Amino acid sequence: MSASSQASPRVRVAIDAMGGDYAPAYEVAGTFEALKHLGESAEIILVGREDDIRRELERHNKSELIRVVHASDVVGMADEPSAIVKNRKESSLYVGVDMMKRGEVDAFVSAGNTGAVMATSTMVCGRISGVSRPTIGSFFPTATNKPTLVVDVGANVDSKPRFLYDYALMGEVYSRTMLNISSPTVGLLNVGEEEGKGTENVREAYAMLRKAPIRFVGNVEGRDILSGTVDVVVCDGFEGNIILKFAESVIGFLRARFKLFASRSVAHGITISLFKPVLRAVLRGMDYQDYGGVPLLGVNGVVIIGHGASTPKALGNMVIRAVEMVQRDVNGQIERALKQPEESQSIR
Amino acid sequence: MSASSQASPRVRVAIDAMGGDYAPAYEVAGTFEALKHLGESAEIILVGREDDIRRELERHNKSELIRVVHASDVVGMADEPSAIVKNRKESSLYVGVDMMKRGEVDAFVSAGNTGAVMATSTMVCGRISGVSRPTIGSFFPTATNKPTLVVDVGANVDSKPRFLYDYALMGEVYSRTMLNISSPTVGLLNVGEEEGKGTENVREAYAMLRKAPIRFVGNVEGRDILSGTVDVVVCDGFEGNIILKFAESVIGFLRARFKLFASRSVAHGITISLFKPVLRAVLRGMDYQDYGGVPLLGVNGVVIIGHGASTPKALGNMVIRAVEMVQRDVNGQIERALKQPEESQSIR
Repeated sequence: MSASSQASPRVRVAIDAMGGDYAPAYEVAGTFEALKHLGESAEIILVGREDDIRRELERHNKSELIRVVHASDVVGMADEPSAIVKNRKESSLYVGVDMMKRGEVDAFVSAGNTGAVMATSTMVCGRISGVSRPTIGSFFPTATNKPTLVVDVGANVDSKPRFLYDYALMGEVYSRTMLNISSPTVGLLNVGEEEGKGTENVREAYAMLRKAPIRFVGNVEGRDILSGTVDVVVCDGFEGNIILKFAESVIGFLRARFKLFASRSVAHGITISLFKPVLRAVLRGMDYQDYGGVPLLGVNGVVIIGHGASTPKALGNMVIRAVEMVQRDVNGQIERALKQPEESQSIR
Repeated sequence: MSASSQASPRVRVAIDAMGGDYAPAYEVAGTFEALKHLGESAEIILVGREDDIRRELERHNKSELIRVVHASDVVGMADEPSAIVKNRKESSLYVGVDMMKRGEVDAFVSAGNTGAVMATSTMVCGRISGVSRPTIGSFFPTATNKPTLVVDVGANVDSKPRFLYDYALMGEVYSRTMLNISSPTVGLLNVGEEEGKGTENVREAYAMLRKAPIRFVGNVEGRDILSGTVDVVVCDGFEGNIILKFAESVIGFLRARFKLFASRSVAHGITISLFKPVLRAVLRGMDYQDYGGVPLLGVNGVVIIGHGASTPKALGNMVIRAVEMVQRDVNGQIERALKQPEESQSIR
């Protein structure tokens, strides 16, 4: 679509107003954060318990401009992901995703139960043509200040080689389109750099990726994620999720070590308190929050998923990212990438 | 064996004097580090190129007390692990392991090619009765100052459920015997705490571990490694190795971030230089070096493997650890743990 000369249509984003730990207050505040940046280019629709949402809206100016769609039920963090479509049709999660399916909105944003958002979106909207399995990517800070995109971080375990192949191509599209990296490098997470290393699935994926129409640089190791050696790191959701949670725990670990050091003497305590702002500045970018949500890739629709504890700022960033994904047609590009004629033959 | 009333025999440890990046200088220096601590309780035998070793020995006092066994060949980091037994019988690695096999020494220590040490030890000495697959464990620092033992960290990929079961029991023995934890807790690394999570292999291992004669606490997640939730974390070597390398890269990542911060202004630079000693003190224990090698568990012999860049201090610690493993009969305890009569029936 080349519509650059005419005014772009407003992008419509539904927010699961009941998703996060501080819903709907943070979701409402996040809406205004996003609109400050987006202005007229987007319309935001809050989905959830109307009374609760309206009560929060009243705290803000111009709240009459925000549309609210009522949904009486709320999906919790402990709810079984696969059961939402069957039994929870009144939930804000289902209603929001269904609006996207019916074309009433272009994107959906939630800080709710990740597994439930993923399962519901996939079941209701289906996959992009050519995608074997949708995936969730996440961003890791690096020594170079440019994040590494790791796919998959927990959507699927026991990924078949073909799934890993698709994660690679979807990650490459996202990195190129959304992170503005002109020709992203892609590495396969492994226990050594040499070809032939790793599990059976990974070795098969290596062979497939060598022929892929991307800048595949071969195997990368655990250390390459933070060093920023490559733009996209491909792995099964089992190790991806374990590494993500390990990485998220590093800040807490450092805090505990600094605290332990501070407790040794008054002088130690003073030193650490002086050092705190420095530490905060240095560690910025290691926090999941800063990235404001991660994309669910491969689903027929634009979905951004956030941490339950997402701040209003993070929620605002999630909406902004969703709008960009629509405007830059990430899904159209994924469909084209996975429909390479010379590739479709050779892939099992 | 209860020989507490009589003098214990000297423990004989062979060092692969050609193993590390600074061999044989660091290996020789490490020998004297170890002897400072061990005194008469151990004899250390340096295995490798005699002329090179003697030249290093001359720099030290009382060097005439150290035995040297000549081996003309040196295994490099790039050498194929499985080929050592066939084609490299003159190497310090093979000669040292073979001395252990023949009962001339009780333990073997190397900072050389990890895969080669593992393969050669297993092929030459065989496995402890009842062990399906030898494993390498590694120590991670925690918020509580008590390390977490993670097994496996790269010895085996695509581990069968039975292998994971054995890693758990061997890790439990090591934690109890060597880290002096009276009743160590053991967790299975997974993507969620609930039973039924994870890959097929992990789900089967869960069912087996529930019946194991250990304090199995169920699934743990990536964040539990650094938080020190459990004493032993069990996983396949694929994710174990990736996490180990990821963790090792955290210090370099932090250094790069601090450097970036320091480069922003003169004041920033001064601040960072003032806090360098603090940072060093706080990060102590995050460095692989500090643990001085990791045990190869399940082999019929005591083997400690170190990082190629191991310092003399680390090499000395490796020898000390090897002596303790012999004295505390870790292998005998592993054999008994894996020979639980009520278990041997139910395990596939």
